[in-house]
Amino acid sequence: MTTLQDCLALDAQDPLRELRRLFTLPQGVIYLDGNSLGPLPAAAPARIAQAVTQEWGQGLIRSWNSAGWYELPRRLGDRIAALIGAGADEVVATDSTSINLYKVLSAGLEIAARDAPHRSKLVSERSNFPTDLYIAQSLCKQRGYQLHLVDSDRIEAALTDETAVLMLTHVNYRTGAMHDMADLTAKAHAAGVLAVWDLAHSAGAVPVDLHGADADFAVGCGYKYLNGGPGAPAFVWVHPRHTGRFCQPLAGWWSHEAPFEFTPDYRPAPGIARYLCGTQPILSMTALECGLDTFAAAQPLGGMATLRRKSLALSDLFIALMQERCAGNGFGLATPREHERRGSQVCLTRKQGAYAIVQALIARGVIGDFRAGDGAKHEDILRFGFTPLYTSFADVWNAVEQLRQVLESGEWQRPEFDRKHAVT
Amino acid sequence: MTTLQDCLALDAQDPLRELRRLFTLPQGVIYLDGNSLGPLPAAAPARIAQAVTQEWGQGLIRSWNSAGWYELPRRLGDRIAALIGAGADEVVATDSTSINLYKVLSAGLEIAARDAPHRSKLVSERSNFPTDLYIAQSLCKQRGYQLHLVDSDRIEAALTDETAVLMLTHVNYRTGAMHDMADLTAKAHAAGVLAVWDLAHSAGAVPVDLHGADADFAVGCGYKYLNGGPGAPAFVWVHPRHTGRFCQPLAGWWSHEAPFEFTPDYRPAPGIARYLCGTQPILSMTALECGLDTFAAAQPLGGMATLRRKSLALSDLFIALMQERCAGNGFGLATPREHERRGSQVCLTRKQGAYAIVQALIARGVIGDFRAGDGAKHEDILRFGFTPLYTSFADVWNAVEQLRQVLESGEWQRPEFDRKHAVT
Repeated sequence: MTTLQDCLALDAQDPLRELRRLFTLPQGVIYLDGNSLGPLPAAAPARIAQAVTQEWGQGLIRSWNSAGWYELPRRLGDRIAALIGAGADEVVATDSTSINLYKVLSAGLEIAARDAPHRSKLVSERSNFPTDLYIAQSLCKQRGYQLHLVDSDRIEAALTDETAVLMLTHVNYRTGAMHDMADLTAKAHAAGVLAVWDLAHSAGAVPVDLHGADADFAVGCGYKYLNGGPGAPAFVWVHPRHTGRFCQPLAGWWSHEAPFEFTPDYRPAPGIARYLCGTQPILSMTALECGLDTFAAAQPLGGMATLRRKSLALSDLFIALMQERCAGNGFGLATPREHERRGSQVCLTRKQGAYAIVQALIARGVIGDFRAGDGAKHEDILRFGFTPLYTSFADVWNAVEQLRQVLESGEWQRPEFDRKHAVT
Repeated sequence: MTTLQDCLALDAQDPLRELRRLFTLPQGVIYLDGNSLGPLPAAAPARIAQAVTQEWGQGLIRSWNSAGWYELPRRLGDRIAALIGAGADEVVATDSTSINLYKVLSAGLEIAARDAPHRSKLVSERSNFPTDLYIAQSLCKQRGYQLHLVDSDRIEAALTDETAVLMLTHVNYRTGAMHDMADLTAKAHAAGVLAVWDLAHSAGAVPVDLHGADADFAVGCGYKYLNGGPGAPAFVWVHPRHTGRFCQPLAGWWSHEAPFEFTPDYRPAPGIARYLCGTQPILSMTALECGLDTFAAAQPLGGMATLRRKSLALSDLFIALMQERCAGNGFGLATPREHERRGSQVCLTRKQGAYAIVQALIARGVIGDFRAGDGAKHEDILRFGFTPLYTSFADVWNAVEQLRQVLESGEWQRPEFDRKHAVT
């Protein structure tokens, strides 16, 4: 049996243990929901206050130049690029994941229409995050493509000469299952299919190597593992072989070659800047930079490789402790046990009571979240994110102990934990 | 001749004079660029700090419910609606002006394609803000429409049975000239043409009555006259007769009828919420709410009607003082003298030296901005916004006096004021 002492010993040996001080976490909270909203970087309040009172308040309009506001999407894009195996000048931080997906899917379909006009399908996974599917539905309808949704074990079979684009989320939001990006991209390319990857649950969570995988397009989220704050701007990457070939449809002035010439004719910017659209929310962008700073601090300690090692150790520990201390309570494991197929979260399944158990845990200060069962399997999900920048091994032990007590006491069956509409 | 004493007397009688304390303006600055970026509301630093440290830091993911984050686009939309003659549940604050324009233009073209498939043109003004034209170019290319750009005196003539949609910016960004929204919308409708209005330089600047004008669609900006902070979210309005008729193309999960059911099939929200897309930048949204609060404070004093009265008095004064004190310096007036055709800014023209003069003024603490001449007229623009919430009549007098000194001294010809790339 693993003891709290064992976990404290792991913490004492953890090369990342000092990084927890980079975050401000509430007293008495074990936060296992950084996969949904990363916590507050300790440096963010002062930095944001500076942006508000000095840059906005004192600098006013001059801060577009003097405070570097205008460069933020590219500057932050370069910093994100370093976390996902992309090159400099290949990523911009901007807009939302949904909007960026619209841009790259549109581009992918346009490339396909030119290079392979007989291909009529956009393939994705039925269990993909819904906004990806909605955006794909909208574009397919608009452009005369068919959205073909398959189960995860049927993806390869769907890479036929009818398929134009494969759109996948690298790590599944409900189960934490991770695709082999390099393998699926290679299989897509072998079949003449473009590969679009959503890194919402990957960027800052697992090592990603877009160039190594030879991916075509990618988008991702700023407010989950990147700790960019609520609704932080998202990001978009385009392989340089595609960037200059066409314009994305949201061709606003920030995507223009010379926006401040104010010419009536559109001339797309030469590089990734053509994936920008309009003016960006600078205060939220400033918070995202603070989130990225927390990854910069991990760089001298080995960066994403060290983070990944600890992430797997944390999720391994959680799985082991659940078996040791909470067995026989009707939980299943939705997340793959194999490391190479696991993201940075662990998802438990339960036929009943999942919502109430999550609520009872939150009441005890252990914050995970709930996802309703999908159509196929009538099992709801209890979702726990393990974020090595600020989560300790002792946190994992204590979280499982709280869960054990919630189950043993039966307190999760209290009326106040009844399932209601969950907004997370 | 008007004296500073006269202006101080006007300030003493100004019913809005106390509202200036709602803003934090830098010492020694006369800020005449609120048409580009509104200044910092005095309440914003504390409110944003609360959102950062309490809502994000302490509330974490729970704040989507407990702090009302999820409702912000609709809640702020309702507050903006009250400033533009729209009803409750008809406006959402979201995304950027460019992106919102893409949504409504797409909707307009879709309506036209159903109701009037023989109409093939989207008409706009050649001098419209470029991002509007770029977005329109992109959509026209995509949907097989022709973008037909005309001069402002040829708009009515372009309302033919070939035209599907008329897209105009209510107040011109370069000249401050204002269209008669009700008149042009009526003429458009009489010709079977839908009317899309960009309120970027109108919302919070001049009275707008979207229902009174019977407009079809509108978008606008949060960071100019609404004082929402750099890159604040924009807004979008759709006339209820159109809202339920179709889906906009950026159909992300926030536009879904039940986003937290996470269903793979898209079902659009019944009302204006279908014009949302993805997760919004909450910190920037919070700043926008502080900007809107400054308008709430003007409500008991007569709201937009009182603001308009003072705005015209300020711009009248500026025009008069320019004639009295700066005549013979080669300035023209791009802004109409007629009140009903003037927005809330005054634009001077000059064949040469406009950039340097603006820079010399900024160096003296009088912040306006520069816009290069367009193709037709080779006259550059010096742009001054007059925002009645925080600009005094004495400010106007002092600004003109500084300009007089800049001209008299010849200091604007110093090398450091040479024209460079302007980012505003």
